[in-house]
Amino acid sequence: MLETTHPDRAHQQVARAPIQFYFDFSSPYSYIASEWINAVAARHGRRVQWHAMLLGVTFQAAELKSPVSYPMKREYTLRDFERSAHFAGLPYKQPEPFPIATQNAARVFWWLDAQDPARAVAWAQAALRAYFTRGVALNDPVQLKALAAQSGLDADAAEAAWNNSVWKDRLKAENDAAIAAGVFGAPYFIVDGEPFWGNDRQAQIERWLSTGPFKRL
Amino acid sequence: MLETTHPDRAHQQVARAPIQFYFDFSSPYSYIASEWINAVAARHGRRVQWHAMLLGVTFQAAELKSPVSYPMKREYTLRDFERSAHFAGLPYKQPEPFPIATQNAARVFWWLDAQDPARAVAWAQAALRAYFTRGVALNDPVQLKALAAQSGLDADAAEAAWNNSVWKDRLKAENDAAIAAGVFGAPYFIVDGEPFWGNDRQAQIERWLSTGPFKRL
Repeated sequence: MLETTHPDRAHQQVARAPIQFYFDFSSPYSYIASEWINAVAARHGRRVQWHAMLLGVTFQAAELKSPVSYPMKREYTLRDFERSAHFAGLPYKQPEPFPIATQNAARVFWWLDAQDPARAVAWAQAALRAYFTRGVALNDPVQLKALAAQSGLDADAAEAAWNNSVWKDRLKAENDAAIAAGVFGAPYFIVDGEPFWGNDRQAQIERWLSTGPFKRL
Repeated sequence: MLETTHPDRAHQQVARAPIQFYFDFSSPYSYIASEWINAVAARHGRRVQWHAMLLGVTFQAAELKSPVSYPMKREYTLRDFERSAHFAGLPYKQPEPFPIATQNAARVFWWLDAQDPARAVAWAQAALRAYFTRGVALNDPVQLKALAAQSGLDADAAEAAWNNSVWKDRLKAENDAAIAAGVFGAPYFIVDGEPFWGNDRQAQIERWLSTGPFKRL
């Protein structure tokens, strides 16, 4: 497919691989990134492949812990979650309890993804917003089922999916694949093989999409 | 002192406290931040108070470790150091050995600061550039002394300073003060009481200086 393209964007014609986007439903910086990644990709003619995963599993593989598990870092980080959301123009309300187990929400994601990736993305956005702006406890099966219903899903089928070994195994396989790809935190992005960790790498990702690898000085 | 000021900048007239900037001579992200912090502050009518400190001491106090001490994170982080420097338009060459002990360079900083803070800042910039662009080993007394001479200092006096208990004690006191101020990493900034951690908080610092606390949604 040939298109008339501004010369500066010519590299995009040979490299339009989707952006790989790894997130966890209990990660505030993933919530923030989930609100801009599709728009940024679209501006550069890219699609995004979303990957729900369990941050706790990647932390364990990388011998890391959550920033909020260190007392001095915790106080700063809780402040930075809200400030970074507001900086991005997003609402934010620190949920309690935090962090939470998110395997059920992630299994619903993969169950939907197998049917229609766009529905899985819509579920991810709805669940991240529910947890980080309204405190909906995604780890509580009752609240998660109600959220599924509000999101237009068959709530009984969603519950059956998160209890089904097929989607349990799928999530395990996705966690393993993320670790194999080098993912040790969330959000994590891979753009044409280049890894970017953290919501705060948005500007670097945008420049990379515009110009490719930064000029070496 | 009254000035004619654009209304958007009126808040700066009541709050022109200096920006507190904490750095370590072995921190790549501190090197990057050291190249923009004075210019950003100046654009907003602020001064910067530079604080040389030992990141290892704050890590210990906060029960943290260097990102390069975790194998999975190490590979990414080494890549990100260089990429982030290039993104900021700066040269970068990963030094070896890395990280290094930086107490001597930091004691020279405080020795100069007591004479003239501007000379201390010039030393900090020279030493950070030397280590991160030319691999000058700041932990090697011979190389450090040569750098002091090249930087226009009395090299014998600089060596005497880093061996003097006065400047050893001063650095210890500065580390303690940083920890008491909540510093757990580098670079670390405090703007009118608001803490910012990391070179990647530059955009948030700039907006904070322009508008004050971000609007809550």
